[in-house]
Amino acid sequence: MVRRQGVTAPLGFRAAGLTAGLKPSGKPDLALVFNEGPDLGAAAVFTKNQVKAAPVLWTAEIIKSRRVRAVILNSGGANACTGPEGFQDTHATAEAVASTLSNWGTETGPVEVAVCSTGIIGERLPMYKILAGVTEIVHEMGGGLEGGTDAAWAIMTTDTVPKQVALHHPGGWNVGGMAKGAGMMAPSLATMLVVLTTDAKVAPAMLDTALRRATALTFDRLDIDGSTSTNDTVLLLSSGASQIEVTQEELDAAVFAVCDDLAVQLQNDAEGVTKRCSVTVTGARTEDEALAVARTIGRDSLVKTALFGADPNWGRVLAAIGVAPVVIDPNTITVSFNGSAVCVDGTGVPGAREVDLSGDRIDVVADLGLGDAEATIRTTDLSHAYVEENSAYTT
Amino acid sequence: MVRRQGVTAPLGFRAAGLTAGLKPSGKPDLALVFNEGPDLGAAAVFTKNQVKAAPVLWTAEIIKSRRVRAVILNSGGANACTGPEGFQDTHATAEAVASTLSNWGTETGPVEVAVCSTGIIGERLPMYKILAGVTEIVHEMGGGLEGGTDAAWAIMTTDTVPKQVALHHPGGWNVGGMAKGAGMMAPSLATMLVVLTTDAKVAPAMLDTALRRATALTFDRLDIDGSTSTNDTVLLLSSGASQIEVTQEELDAAVFAVCDDLAVQLQNDAEGVTKRCSVTVTGARTEDEALAVARTIGRDSLVKTALFGADPNWGRVLAAIGVAPVVIDPNTITVSFNGSAVCVDGTGVPGAREVDLSGDRIDVVADLGLGDAEATIRTTDLSHAYVEENSAYTT
Repeated sequence: MVRRQGVTAPLGFRAAGLTAGLKPSGKPDLALVFNEGPDLGAAAVFTKNQVKAAPVLWTAEIIKSRRVRAVILNSGGANACTGPEGFQDTHATAEAVASTLSNWGTETGPVEVAVCSTGIIGERLPMYKILAGVTEIVHEMGGGLEGGTDAAWAIMTTDTVPKQVALHHPGGWNVGGMAKGAGMMAPSLATMLVVLTTDAKVAPAMLDTALRRATALTFDRLDIDGSTSTNDTVLLLSSGASQIEVTQEELDAAVFAVCDDLAVQLQNDAEGVTKRCSVTVTGARTEDEALAVARTIGRDSLVKTALFGADPNWGRVLAAIGVAPVVIDPNTITVSFNGSAVCVDGTGVPGAREVDLSGDRIDVVADLGLGDAEATIRTTDLSHAYVEENSAYTT
Repeated sequence: MVRRQGVTAPLGFRAAGLTAGLKPSGKPDLALVFNEGPDLGAAAVFTKNQVKAAPVLWTAEIIKSRRVRAVILNSGGANACTGPEGFQDTHATAEAVASTLSNWGTETGPVEVAVCSTGIIGERLPMYKILAGVTEIVHEMGGGLEGGTDAAWAIMTTDTVPKQVALHHPGGWNVGGMAKGAGMMAPSLATMLVVLTTDAKVAPAMLDTALRRATALTFDRLDIDGSTSTNDTVLLLSSGASQIEVTQEELDAAVFAVCDDLAVQLQNDAEGVTKRCSVTVTGARTEDEALAVARTIGRDSLVKTALFGADPNWGRVLAAIGVAPVVIDPNTITVSFNGSAVCVDGTGVPGAREVDLSGDRIDVVADLGLGDAEATIRTTDLSHAYVEENSAYTT
């Protein structure tokens, strides 16, 4: 796994990133990922939020063909809650990308262009800047085969570092990816945009299977603040350029590895994070129940502030478990922090208050004592920096 | 409504509060409410948390007789997650109150003594201090008819002010009450202890009806941080000392008024509060759906940090509505802050970002455009002070 490379690590992909002027800061805000083929396979998963941004509505529609030539992504504006005009803006952006690519020599229809946006909800995008940026970015992409890193920079919002990763399979094929997302992260994918690429030779249905399996165990289990975005999109594109056919199992493993690595990068850079935390629930009746309890613990403001304070306040973990949407037995719950048992069978262990949580990682394990199923989510603490960042986001 | 008086405002009740030494601070931590009769009617509602503290288990059992002579309350320790020994401690406390009252001339059985505790979860109570305190507090209570205010002080934890209220009905009967609770407040009563008293002549079944109706609309709709305590208890005691018989409707109205006033006091003193917020959802299909959406908005960390920042970021309200457990239509949602529409039919209104939220009250109204039902919850912002207070609670 190489983190200096991203979506352009696999053969057959070009990318670019530049400043279109959408962000007041003047930082890069427009990115393009282009699939040279020969295959144009694509799969996607989207936010489960009922309020979906225009680019999500658009991309969910065009992905039905399982064919994507290019992905245009912007930061500096989510284009969510912008009405029919916002949807027109997304459509116009896809049209502009398609016609510019066609002029540039690659015949492309707008329905082959996926669109992703991220930023403030409720503002129209300045389309004259977007359209000028589209012309420029297609031109820039033509200039070289690399550009994945520029694209990863251009999709950042409150992220402090770009996130990308590449897996070079010993079999000679590759999977690459980039991601953005630092807050509004919750079960339904964690507010984020992710583009994954592979040069393996695979049927689009295999892409879809691999993507759903991987996201269910990675991005779907990243729960920073319980909030779910209107714009979450994860795309997986295949070029087939390696000419190497792979099995579903090989593809699953590689896509999972790339998603898992990006999920860790997202957790590490979450808004205001001072503690990277995992919450594992074992001894549940079913994996779904384990996951429901883990999410309840990981979202509890009192648990999260205790983690920030490095306070082994296991009582708050028990109180959170008690309101999870699962029938539990308070007398069979065992909790440990960083491997030290703090509560056994629902009662405190001597010395529990002295467990050292001063490091930057905290692993919480709660055994329900009800069965054999388990699940883990990744989360973070609730810090002053989180409050600071999110109380002054639009101002 | 008089806020200088509380549980001793109705005829037939005595109360006291003192320092038993449970709190390191040396502040008052033991309270007693005593019903002189002639009636000993009682009703109670408790936390819905599956992890219930020993005093909740005890009081839920003894309340089945609908007869309570005295309530002993302590702060400085929740006696939750303390195992069978913790339950024994609660039992021993009730025994001590009963035998001291019996010695003092009022024959009392332990099953006539309700017990409430609040404080840190998972620590055993220092019983030698509790038992010494019980003797002292019964003696102190004998010294005078007033003491409600002392009791209100003694049940405080992170509260900054005592909360009490009294309603003097023009018909010549009274309802009084006291409450504590500043954090871990959520749908299931908002971590708190409340004792209500009345000198009306009523059947215990009427008390139960009035209490359930009142709490459903007041304490159950106070949602500060989405966390639910192991110790929530609301008790309503009747002495019948006024000799005045009242109707169910009269009792309902009076108990509601007292609960509503105490709920406002709890909201005003919530941990770290800088903005007192109401979230009203209108235009829902049913009241339950309205309530579910209101709770989802009121618990969203990104909404709450925006409120702290006085930021009219209505997009976060829409994103929260979109993940509520209710089917909504994003295109029929209208949102206003402090009476100013910021979003109509799912799209922003010009000037929405300029709405002034700098005052200490913010009213959020979201109309779903689906029906005629509505519900309101009370909540607060998510501030630095909340994080500070809750990251250093046990240390």
